[in-house]
Amino acid sequence: MTSKSLDAMVGARIFFKCENLQKTGSFKIRGATNAIFSLSDQEISRGIVTQSSGNHGAAVACAAAWRGVPAWIVMPKNAAAVKRLAIEGYGGRVTLCEPTMTSRNEASHRIQAETGALMIHPYDDDRVIAGQATAGKEFLEEIGDLDAVFAPVSGGGLLSGTCLGAKGVRPQVQVFGCEPAQADDAYRSLETGTLQTLDSSNTIADGLRASLSPRTFAILRENVNAILRVSEVEIIAATRLVWERMKIIVEPSSAVAIAPLLKEGGVAGLGLPSRPDGDRWKLGVIFSGGNVDLSALPF
Amino acid sequence: MTSKSLDAMVGARIFFKCENLQKTGSFKIRGATNAIFSLSDQEISRGIVTQSSGNHGAAVACAAAWRGVPAWIVMPKNAAAVKRLAIEGYGGRVTLCEPTMTSRNEASHRIQAETGALMIHPYDDDRVIAGQATAGKEFLEEIGDLDAVFAPVSGGGLLSGTCLGAKGVRPQVQVFGCEPAQADDAYRSLETGTLQTLDSSNTIADGLRASLSPRTFAILRENVNAILRVSEVEIIAATRLVWERMKIIVEPSSAVAIAPLLKEGGVAGLGLPSRPDGDRWKLGVIFSGGNVDLSALPF
Repeated sequence: MTSKSLDAMVGARIFFKCENLQKTGSFKIRGATNAIFSLSDQEISRGIVTQSSGNHGAAVACAAAWRGVPAWIVMPKNAAAVKRLAIEGYGGRVTLCEPTMTSRNEASHRIQAETGALMIHPYDDDRVIAGQATAGKEFLEEIGDLDAVFAPVSGGGLLSGTCLGAKGVRPQVQVFGCEPAQADDAYRSLETGTLQTLDSSNTIADGLRASLSPRTFAILRENVNAILRVSEVEIIAATRLVWERMKIIVEPSSAVAIAPLLKEGGVAGLGLPSRPDGDRWKLGVIFSGGNVDLSALPF
Repeated sequence: MTSKSLDAMVGARIFFKCENLQKTGSFKIRGATNAIFSLSDQEISRGIVTQSSGNHGAAVACAAAWRGVPAWIVMPKNAAAVKRLAIEGYGGRVTLCEPTMTSRNEASHRIQAETGALMIHPYDDDRVIAGQATAGKEFLEEIGDLDAVFAPVSGGGLLSGTCLGAKGVRPQVQVFGCEPAQADDAYRSLETGTLQTLDSSNTIADGLRASLSPRTFAILRENVNAILRVSEVEIIAATRLVWERMKIIVEPSSAVAIAPLLKEGGVAGLGLPSRPDGDRWKLGVIFSGGNVDLSALPF
């Protein structure tokens, strides 16, 4: 999608990859599908298990249903009811646990032991990253001369995939990760050169509360151009702006990818090379998802 | 757009014409553009005036700017601030009046007298109706074997245009108008055979509070298959469902066009003929606009 009014605000030509309109409402279906359809009939015969309070859980439930195998989704008790309903709507079998890492791990290990189901990690998995990479690949195949692509970063599955997919098609394209300042482990990891984790975060961008894994960190160190941080106020304002101007529902986690461009001088500050055609930069923004609890909007 | 989950709920194959994604956020730009570009340079030299608290005002302001002439928009004092800002953003010159018909008419006649601007009525105008008709025409050109098309009805510009545009391409397509039960002047007009007006209505579908004109009534009597009425609760539930499942922002006035199909037995009750291919009906739904005040949502 495009938006003349957002172009005018940002001073560039922006192309939006709308993964909010994707099956299950987020890009996560790309990685889940690729992982689940990469397995042999024998490997997958006992089904799939994963831990997720959100989009990855719905994607795994949906992709498992397409493959015709059961999916167990471990989610914390305090996850939003609409997310549980969505997962069950795709045929996922929900197991509730306490909202702690220990409880989540215990529950999923118990399910693995009892059922023989395979675990599919939301991002620390090459097949998942390769699946997410298709968004950036499609983007550059469609808009061949993008100067830069912007994607949100949490565990780094989408961002590392975007680096590989977009730069695989056009090596000179720059890729920027966008992150809430309140959950800036990716920024700190790249600054310090060592993997930083996030103790906890309450950012409104609830899809961006995870930390990089060694696998995604290694890909980002090699390939990402920079990580851009935005405040909670900027995230909420960007979310609302997209809803009002583009008439599409994006999660706050998605709006994080446009928020840095809406800052005063945001684009000029990136140091992008001038275009050979002398025209305004062509920028790609990946909206990662659109699953929002309409009963709890920040505006 | 299409939605597998809405198809499953309704028991049909539904195609959505998303005028919420149209320039200025509604179908109104079709009629305004056609009317304004139908005028000679001399006719239009003094500009355009219209009365509108909403989407028609924004459309006229935008189309007048494209034509390079001034547009005066008379709106009631109590119109939402965001609508005024949108109109001014397109370069429209807003004149506020009291929220009464008398005050609106006085203000627009005064502007006509002072400036020589031409009045463009929101729907009682053949050029406007012809412009709105392009939505239904495009719909049938794209999905050639639709069994029926559903559009909201207020003053009847969109619905009468849809009858002409859709049946012009495919005479056997059925066209249904959808209307809030709280503002059912079109239903009552067609039932009684005489033009009924609406004293006032407070329906949440704020784009559907106008009454038919003799011109639109005459077209509907000849061409529309039926008017379907929905309650306020059904409108709000349909709006929320579209937001949640389709991830697009539609006004309650838009959701009125899908709400009748979501009722138990809603489609079967229409008496549509079976398809030659024996498959489920193919239905077209026109989402008329997406301009919503996000500060005043009904959920």
